[in-house]
Amino acid sequence: MSGNTFGKLFCVTTFGESHGPALGCIVDGCPPGLEISEADIQLELDRRKPGTSRYTTQRREADQVKILSGVFEGKTTGTPIGLLIENTDQRSKDYANIAEQVRPAHADYTYWQKYGLRDYRGGGRSSARETAMRVAAGAIAKQWLRQQYGIEVRGYLSQLGPIRVEKLDWDQVGQNPFFCPDADKVPEMEDYMQALIKEGNSIGARISVHASGVPAGLGEPIFDRLDADLAHALMSINAVKGVEIGAGFASVEQKGTEHRDEITPEGFLSNNAGGVLGGISSGQDIIAHIALKPTSSLRIPGRSIDVHGNPIEVVTKGRHDPCVGIRATPIAEAMMALVLVDHALRQRAQNGDVQPGVVTVKG
Amino acid sequence: MSGNTFGKLFCVTTFGESHGPALGCIVDGCPPGLEISEADIQLELDRRKPGTSRYTTQRREADQVKILSGVFEGKTTGTPIGLLIENTDQRSKDYANIAEQVRPAHADYTYWQKYGLRDYRGGGRSSARETAMRVAAGAIAKQWLRQQYGIEVRGYLSQLGPIRVEKLDWDQVGQNPFFCPDADKVPEMEDYMQALIKEGNSIGARISVHASGVPAGLGEPIFDRLDADLAHALMSINAVKGVEIGAGFASVEQKGTEHRDEITPEGFLSNNAGGVLGGISSGQDIIAHIALKPTSSLRIPGRSIDVHGNPIEVVTKGRHDPCVGIRATPIAEAMMALVLVDHALRQRAQNGDVQPGVVTVKG
Amino acid sequence: MSGNTFGKLFCVTTFGESHGPALGCIVDGCPPGLEISEADIQLELDRRKPGTSRYTTQRREADQVKILSGVFEGKTTGTPIGLLIENTDQRSKDYANIAEQVRPAHADYTYWQKYGLRDYRGGGRSSARETAMRVAAGAIAKQWLRQQYGIEVRGYLSQLGPIRVEKLDWDQVGQNPFFCPDADKVPEMEDYMQALIKEGNSIGARISVHASGVPAGLGEPIFDRLDADLAHALMSINAVKGVEIGAGFASVEQKGTEHRDEITPEGFLSNNAGGVLGGISSGQDIIAHIALKPTSSLRIPGRSIDVHGNPIEVVTKGRHDPCVGIRATPIAEAMMALVLVDHALRQRAQNGDVQPGVVTVKG
Amino acid sequence: MSGNTFGKLFCVTTFGESHGPALGCIVDGCPPGLEISEADIQLELDRRKPGTSRYTTQRREADQVKILSGVFEGKTTGTPIGLLIENTDQRSKDYANIAEQVRPAHADYTYWQKYGLRDYRGGGRSSARETAMRVAAGAIAKQWLRQQYGIEVRGYLSQLGPIRVEKLDWDQVGQNPFFCPDADKVPEMEDYMQALIKEGNSIGARISVHASGVPAGLGEPIFDRLDADLAHALMSINAVKGVEIGAGFASVEQKGTEHRDEITPEGFLSNNAGGVLGGISSGQDIIAHIALKPTSSLRIPGRSIDVHGNPIEVVTKGRHDPCVGIRATPIAEAMMALVLVDHALRQRAQNGDVQPGVVTVKG
Repeated sequence: MSGNTFGKLFCVTTFGESHGPALGCIVDGCPPGLEISEADIQLELDRRKPGTSRYTTQRREADQVKILSGVFEGKTTGTPIGLLIENTDQRSKDYANIAEQVRPAHADYTYWQKYGLRDYRGGGRSSARETAMRVAAGAIAKQWLRQQYGIEVRGYLSQLGPIRVEKLDWDQVGQNPFFCPDADKVPEMEDYMQALIKEGNSIGARISVHASGVPAGLGEPIFDRLDADLAHALMSINAVKGVEIGAGFASVEQKGTEHRDEITPEGFLSNNAGGVLGGISSGQDIIAHIALKPTSSLRIPGRSIDVHGNPIEVVTKGRHDPCVGIRATPIAEAMMALVLVDHALRQRAQNGDVQPGVVTVKG
Repeated sequence: MSGNTFGKLFCVTTFGESHGPALGCIVDGCPPGLEISEADIQLELDRRKPGTSRYTTQRREADQVKILSGVFEGKTTGTPIGLLIENTDQRSKDYANIAEQVRPAHADYTYWQKYGLRDYRGGGRSSARETAMRVAAGAIAKQWLRQQYGIEVRGYLSQLGPIRVEKLDWDQVGQNPFFCPDADKVPEMEDYMQALIKEGNSIGARISVHASGVPAGLGEPIFDRLDADLAHALMSINAVKGVEIGAGFASVEQKGTEHRDEITPEGFLSNNAGGVLGGISSGQDIIAHIALKPTSSLRIPGRSIDVHGNPIEVVTKGRHDPCVGIRATPIAEAMMALVLVDHALRQRAQNGDVQPGVVTVKG
Repeated sequence: MSGNTFGKLFCVTTFGESHGPALGCIVDGCPPGLEISEADIQLELDRRKPGTSRYTTQRREADQVKILSGVFEGKTTGTPIGLLIENTDQRSKDYANIAEQVRPAHADYTYWQKYGLRDYRGGGRSSARETAMRVAAGAIAKQWLRQQYGIEVRGYLSQLGPIRVEKLDWDQVGQNPFFCPDADKVPEMEDYMQALIKEGNSIGARISVHASGVPAGLGEPIFDRLDADLAHALMSINAVKGVEIGAGFASVEQKGTEHRDEITPEGFLSNNAGGVLGGISSGQDIIAHIALKPTSSLRIPGRSIDVHGNPIEVVTKGRHDPCVGIRATPIAEAMMALVLVDHALRQRAQNGDVQPGVVTVKG
Repeated sequence: MSGNTFGKLFCVTTFGESHGPALGCIVDGCPPGLEISEADIQLELDRRKPGTSRYTTQRREADQVKILSGVFEGKTTGTPIGLLIENTDQRSKDYANIAEQVRPAHADYTYWQKYGLRDYRGGGRSSARETAMRVAAGAIAKQWLRQQYGIEVRGYLSQLGPIRVEKLDWDQVGQNPFFCPDADKVPEMEDYMQALIKEGNSIGARISVHASGVPAGLGEPIFDRLDADLAHALMSINAVKGVEIGAGFASVEQKGTEHRDEITPEGFLSNNAGGVLGGISSGQDIIAHIALKPTSSLRIPGRSIDVHGNPIEVVTKGRHDPCVGIRATPIAEAMMALVLVDHALRQRAQNGDVQPGVVTVKG
């Protein structure tokens, strides 16, 4: 199967370039009978939408989604769901000057090497604009997980450059443009971003995502473990350079007595595992963290080459996010939701209403 | 497709439990005409084999591989390659006492929750013993990558608990039981492991893997990016809790000017990208790092429950690795090699002998 | 992977219902650099379009296709190609009366049993209207096969009810509304259809498809043989009840001496194999035949039940094809083209520019 | 995914050549808790085994199967099931003389063209010997279908060359070496085969397979329809040249009033559909028919070429089946069973315990 489909049973296939007429996706395999509307999907899209604060790109896209199939009388029918978002603010003239440039740390060079040609308008297919369809498809996944299992998938910005959040207050996440769960850090982040924009530079970020209410048993050893599929899903997001499950890289310095999550009849005593043991969900919260690199489009000149191999200086003048991490929280949530629904269906396929052989401990 | 197959075109499907009669795999899609012998595969298996030093499990397995099909007169025929390793040192009586135990931080609980029953002998399918077949299949992948493109995939232990390596001398990696590339750190590691074994505890580790000679163009945006598939592959290894590509989590605190790898006609000036831009290889070395958690089988008692839900104390008396990371280097190499060969075939499928539109810069 | 995607490397995923706002598809994995335009695709769509003669449904659909992505400056970019056709002549009020009916020999009963609900407007997803997207995707496949290998995929009506064609004159196929290659049979077919329409009945048909210029070597034993994938592709077309390769069911009564296609240095002496030996193309023409059942929507009443289980009489008053086979030729061509391009890419992936070990005989 | 895996969720991957050391397969995705033993599988293998009558090849293979994994204490565990059959009667010297021959109507020519080399011993991978593993895997599928749903998959020889069976008495099928359900035809078949063997020729056959007890709802429109997947499965069997579902090619001459299976509250009044409507099972018996070509290995000389392109005369002296159809019944049953179990799991994945929206009619 080609690279633009995600999932084995709940399959999302997307298309669309930054400056083409439209973005779209097909969600195939969605269980029938799920109540879903354009408004439900729009809610999630609006969380990712560009231009909502001064800290993100000023491109104005309504990101208005249309459902073209698969939903009848307000419910999914089990047949493929076609979704479409028309691009409205393309301004492709902005990009004419980069047609011959190979921007450093962008996908310009590699797309050209791979395909022998490329759509240079705004990054074409490599633009983070494609993530809109992930969020749209993820909205359907979230709806199903919530209705079927009471699963909630929620993320937050856990680090913005040097600024680490210290408190996790879920209620705060929607109250600021950073998805920051620690109200005390918001002013610091605002100041940091203002200075950064002035400087013409960009910065990395760390996003954390939790899923609560996930039943034990999801994940398909040995290759399609739940954590392996999460790693695949999250690393496929633009700009992501690292993925951790639970304790992640901190495990390297942990001793076994520290890392192992002991169990009592009342439940697990810790969650270094991040909710996954042997590649299968344990009933604890699924916890993942991702690292996003700083945007590569900068007003500060950088060395590169043009398509003829000549050295050039690259300066970005278009509209760009100084920190791609700021808008990444809904995308990371969407990808985790897609993995969970896919594995929920896979589990139901093979194991049906299996009667677990042991008592279930509290997550 | 079920969870025991890896790869889209170069497909590896494995079977086998820790204490069953045999482990095996089928490698399907291997290009024909590749010279390969049981001895070639055995070389890699011997690097992973247990019992080769005092720092790993004392289980004695010859791990002798047999080629059952797909190779004729010393060359692959293009048809599926069947590989088999018989288990010889099973001692399943060692495990009788754990039949009713749910060991903390093991897959006991989750396998039972998922399937409703489990093979409790030595972890059954969840045992790291299955990784032998990954290494066997990876040996074929490595051979093809070397012969076809001159690609070399090599790994090393970059951190053992608190001990970080400071020098990368590839020649040292094979000279010590840790796959440590820094000779100065080996005595320290030996002391650390001796103390750890005495204590009955275990420790985490970090492994790094490099692939050199990889042509630009491998990776299938947007979901099957090369880095996303590497994350999938590496996170699917037992005990892995984190994956980084290039600068990884360090990207969080990097500014754009620092992270972006500038390009000159002579080549890239740095490699924070880890050889992947926009999900496609750039021609630079592919670099990945993984975090492995400490083994969960300890001589130090831990709290858990039995299959009836009663609280118990778990103490492991069997043969186990105090640091699973020590034997993980060949496994990580194998998984990277499997990803690369799969993507080399996918690239050849879609893009054939494409003439890149830009001059190729030095990796 | 869910059921609305066809192909392993050249992947077509479709969506859309008979009476929804639009039909669409995503073609993923298309090689880059292929020249393709909306007009190229429209040519094929117009061959399948309803309402072009008095012998097909009188529904008026322009079937105007739009390319939404994946093509830049007239060439494919290697990224997913989004195609869209808006429905214009839905008249869903026509179907209100069948909301509670279970029409015999339609998919009403089975969709309801499968999904628990259904879109009853014009058959919803089960309508043959979805085949428009197969033809659109097939147009791209045909273009690539032609430009890359000189392959031509062509079909014709070989039998209309009791009327069997006796001559195969490719030039005649486009000269009549039946895709009939035998000009002498056209008047007979016209008379037959007139009588049938008057009667309010329908009739079956047989379609034959040939691909010429196919190189030897396509097909992936043992399960994804070229003939097996053709059978899958062709049987997936609405109303198809049988598939033959080469001599097909006539093989049952053939002796080995009759069936085997002898070989001389000048080429094969016959083509009972239909161009496939051991599941792999031989270089001869690929030849397949399909049987299509008569349409189930009749003006003659039939017994059935309603959704409450009560016996009812079903009479169809909507616009329908009295012989679905008449418009099936372009669809069958499209499906064969999709199989061939998929296998051409799979062959290139595994075997690259393999040097055949034997002299190539003429097809 | 490469070509040696069948199924999306219940996945069978096979390996092995006619004259290699062993044949094997991995069954991945089997639901846990299924009681299965080597003896259960052996029962089916013995039905296909060569050398059981004078009408089949005289090669003597015990076809003794071993279960290497995935079954613990008599039950499947949900992890991959490894199966192995060692070859014992290879006699590869018999085949030395054909190393340079390209046998007509065999896969010699196409394997060589595809892979650039081939294992010429007994047809290598293209030998029908690989079907043993289909039967072994199918035995597990049958067991699950029977225990889970009461589904029975049964086949019979419906035509041997010119001899058509006229009665379908299931009790007769196991009473003769032809799987013939019509006792009156058996002497005629014996005489026909004796004459054929004397002549040194071969003959085609037609096999029919029925599945009873199949619930409504199996099949994934629009591409993975149940009938399309059956066509794929059955056409992938060696020597098959045609597949029909229900009325098959007879549909071509049927009118709609004749073909449509009317429905009453008591059930369907006929079964021209073969149990599939719109690609989904209706609850009626699933009925398929296949055409098998005559064996191509004949004692009567035929024209061909050698690997240097020189004209030669080919005469087969090895042990061969004069009618491959005779042993094909268990293979066809196995393939249908594999399709049904795969679709039962797919249905359970997407639709769970869906409450059908209409009353269920009797199959």
